[in-house]
Amino acid sequence: MGAIGGYYGGRLAHAGLEVHFLSHSDYAYVVEHGLRVDSCDGDFYLPHINAYHSSVDMPKTDVIIVGLKSVNNHLLPELIGPIIKEDTVVVLIQNGIGLEADLQAAFPKLHIVAGLAFICSSKTKPGHVCHQCYGSINLGNYSCPQERLSQLLDDFRLAGIQAAEVPYEEARWKKAVWNMPFNGMTVALNTSTDRLLANPATRQLIYDQMMEVVGAANALGVSTVTSEFADQMMQMTDEMVPYSPSMKLDYDFHRPMEIYYLYTRPIEEARKVGFDMPKLAMLEALLKFKNN
Amino acid sequence: MGAIGGYYGGRLAHAGLEVHFLSHSDYAYVVEHGLRVDSCDGDFYLPHINAYHSSVDMPKTDVIIVGLKSVNNHLLPELIGPIIKEDTVVVLIQNGIGLEADLQAAFPKLHIVAGLAFICSSKTKPGHVCHQCYGSINLGNYSCPQERLSQLLDDFRLAGIQAAEVPYEEARWKKAVWNMPFNGMTVALNTSTDRLLANPATRQLIYDQMMEVVGAANALGVSTVTSEFADQMMQMTDEMVPYSPSMKLDYDFHRPMEIYYLYTRPIEEARKVGFDMPKLAMLEALLKFKNN
Repeated sequence: MGAIGGYYGGRLAHAGLEVHFLSHSDYAYVVEHGLRVDSCDGDFYLPHINAYHSSVDMPKTDVIIVGLKSVNNHLLPELIGPIIKEDTVVVLIQNGIGLEADLQAAFPKLHIVAGLAFICSSKTKPGHVCHQCYGSINLGNYSCPQERLSQLLDDFRLAGIQAAEVPYEEARWKKAVWNMPFNGMTVALNTSTDRLLANPATRQLIYDQMMEVVGAANALGVSTVTSEFADQMMQMTDEMVPYSPSMKLDYDFHRPMEIYYLYTRPIEEARKVGFDMPKLAMLEALLKFKNN
Repeated sequence: MGAIGGYYGGRLAHAGLEVHFLSHSDYAYVVEHGLRVDSCDGDFYLPHINAYHSSVDMPKTDVIIVGLKSVNNHLLPELIGPIIKEDTVVVLIQNGIGLEADLQAAFPKLHIVAGLAFICSSKTKPGHVCHQCYGSINLGNYSCPQERLSQLLDDFRLAGIQAAEVPYEEARWKKAVWNMPFNGMTVALNTSTDRLLANPATRQLIYDQMMEVVGAANALGVSTVTSEFADQMMQMTDEMVPYSPSMKLDYDFHRPMEIYYLYTRPIEEARKVGFDMPKLAMLEALLKFKNN
């Protein structure tokens, strides 16, 4: 249980839904002290939560929310295997391209939904999540019966979470338009979003990289990701407070970076259809060097 | 007078040729104490040298050797203007592409030669040059009568300097095959040549960048710069001791980097004939960010 699972799981439990938390490092703490969420939308405290140290001990569930760092996705089949039943829906609140396809390959009949969270939250201490701002979630249907997805949206909304359905491919690639340039470039130059945009050379480079993502999406048949969207992302980032993307935080705290699903995989997918992303491929190489 | 002018000028003076040194920060020191060269090929000391604080005070000369950092090339016409006569030859011992064309534009009738020095030397103190290893110079004829270039080769050899003539365009672009990847990448990742080659991701990136230079040279009609030459440069660098290129030294010592002639200009020249260098253009942007 981290900042994502703790926040969304906590909100759902707080609303009275039955939630079971898989917790590694925090397990002993949350069994004794529960889960605290300090939130810009109102703090709450859950003195007793259903916590487990291993998914082997958990009941099979209707919905699994995954907030795992994608560097650990090789563990995902083993982690969720024991709690899957016939019609379980898995929501992957993770960054990148290709996550759903890989999980589907491991469980061909699983109902999979992409979760695109727009949230600033962090786990500051064991059993303590700080939710600073935003908090909405968009769901993209990868392989889920529509009525199950509608139920999921209702559950989120019941728990006070803004939730909407979005087209799966478009949503994943639109998120990549922002994620691919800014996550890596803030690490490569050890800087922040505002400084990258203030320098004319890196501003142009960020835009060129966004346009590589637009080109890749288009080459893969996702025509709703456009240069106008890249323009909007530039403007949105100009108007944001200086921001450290998740990869920058991982790098600063010496955690492994999510290079595979954020860079390697989308670059591979595009190359398969003959589209080259040279500047993002170079960024991938710089990140692999810095990840050592 | 820096490490280049001090070494080559010093050797020529030591051999009895008439040499006049333009010296800014060292002027007072060298007038009093002369020039000391500690060299792997034998130390020597010149107690009295012809030193000048401004080229206005210098005699007009047959040959001008320029070892100026190219970030100061906007000053070059003013610096050499007073000492040029009808048939003066200028040797530009500088890194990059386009240096000769820019100087020729300022002095259309000037005889210009490219000097490609293979040398490790540094100025460690005022009036004191340390020449660690190598020391040969290749000359590429840009706009010089052949007999003057032959005389120049003879003068260098008389002074104990290995000197050879090389085809101008080929020599400049071959040097760029090594210079463009390694100068910038050691700065971008704050590392050394051996580490860049030890990591598979950056090793491939370095090779891709070399191939962008090969492609640019070919697009500009310089067909003798080949992928085999890039292979040789990879192998040579594998066999070298870990090395900090001049741009890395400039960066480490907080001096301005030679981005224009090493990156901006060759990338522009290639783009004019329709050839794109995306990974080196990205490197240029990273360097411009770090140069601030």
